[in-house]
Amino acid sequence: MANGGPEIEQLIQLMARLPGLGPRSARRAVLHMIKKKDGLMIPLSRAMERAVEAVTICKVCGNVDTRSPCAICADPRRGESGLLIVVEDVADLWALERAGVGAARYHVLGGVLSPLDGIGPDDLSIDALIARAPEYSEIVLAVNATVEGQTTAHYVTDRLAGSGLKVTRLAHGVPVGGELDYLDEGTLSQALKARTEI
Amino acid sequence: MANGGPEIEQLIQLMARLPGLGPRSARRAVLHMIKKKDGLMIPLSRAMERAVEAVTICKVCGNVDTRSPCAICADPRRGESGLLIVVEDVADLWALERAGVGAARYHVLGGVLSPLDGIGPDDLSIDALIARAPEYSEIVLAVNATVEGQTTAHYVTDRLAGSGLKVTRLAHGVPVGGELDYLDEGTLSQALKARTEI
Repeated sequence: MANGGPEIEQLIQLMARLPGLGPRSARRAVLHMIKKKDGLMIPLSRAMERAVEAVTICKVCGNVDTRSPCAICADPRRGESGLLIVVEDVADLWALERAGVGAARYHVLGGVLSPLDGIGPDDLSIDALIARAPEYSEIVLAVNATVEGQTTAHYVTDRLAGSGLKVTRLAHGVPVGGELDYLDEGTLSQALKARTEI
Repeated sequence: MANGGPEIEQLIQLMARLPGLGPRSARRAVLHMIKKKDGLMIPLSRAMERAVEAVTICKVCGNVDTRSPCAICADPRRGESGLLIVVEDVADLWALERAGVGAARYHVLGGVLSPLDGIGPDDLSIDALIARAPEYSEIVLAVNATVEGQTTAHYVTDRLAGSGLKVTRLAHGVPVGGELDYLDEGTLSQALKARTEI
């Protein structure tokens, strides 16, 4: 009753489960939708319905797409470079694609090793990575620069040790547009160590 | 392509138009949905579809409900008190209902007077309020304590002047649980003026 009928109440409760939204902001979002019913709520409802039907997870790399193998895995030009970029999450894959990484394929681990949270190697897509890695010439471990990310990178490197594959990681350094004054000591010291000639 | 197909891209763009979400958080929300397809995305899609079909605006008071007149306007016990609470927005109505205001009816203005934004009396549901006000014995102006809100309250009071109706506003004072030290001078001075005997 309070929030105008069970349909609206249920919609608010489901919206509140999205990351970044709480009960209050979900209520605001739903009210905004209702006010812009034709312009926003109906298109959003249809887009969600279409996405539910279309979306699938790529069986090869773990990417989210409307087909499996995904557009990246199905593109033969992507394989020519021999570059396989290993990421924690689909969001990281999207971020690299937005950065225009170019010809490369990806492998989504689906998380990082985290003994405290009970996440071991079997919970991640590591066996599948080891199995497909020999098809490529270089494996780039593009995991987050966190403790768990680096632990995962070490573990994957160990598993790939005997394969003769080149294993690399992303460069550490000063973010483009970043001010030195605001950077942490770890990043600055890494950036100095890895200095390049102009 | 970048974000896994046009269906996903479109869903992200529409989600980004909700208040409190930007392009980045919309992407996060959509990825979260896709990962929890059965538990969240499908129920959310259905809830949205149901809400699109069910939701309507009450022709009497402007509330959002699944029928018009809304449940509040249709409930005869709500009318007995003779109390009509005037609010700016449906969100305020919901807030008052959550506060357990009890037997009262509402009137949603749909905004506040704001000459700078070109919002005049004809853009709000003021004529409808004047028309239905005589059915009630007391009109509570529960508008926000902002300049625009108070301007609107003054205007509505002027329009109701000759009707002989009792027009009231919400009390100003110390919020329950609030610390005096953090309150602004205006609120404190109002709270002192309106002090009550224990």
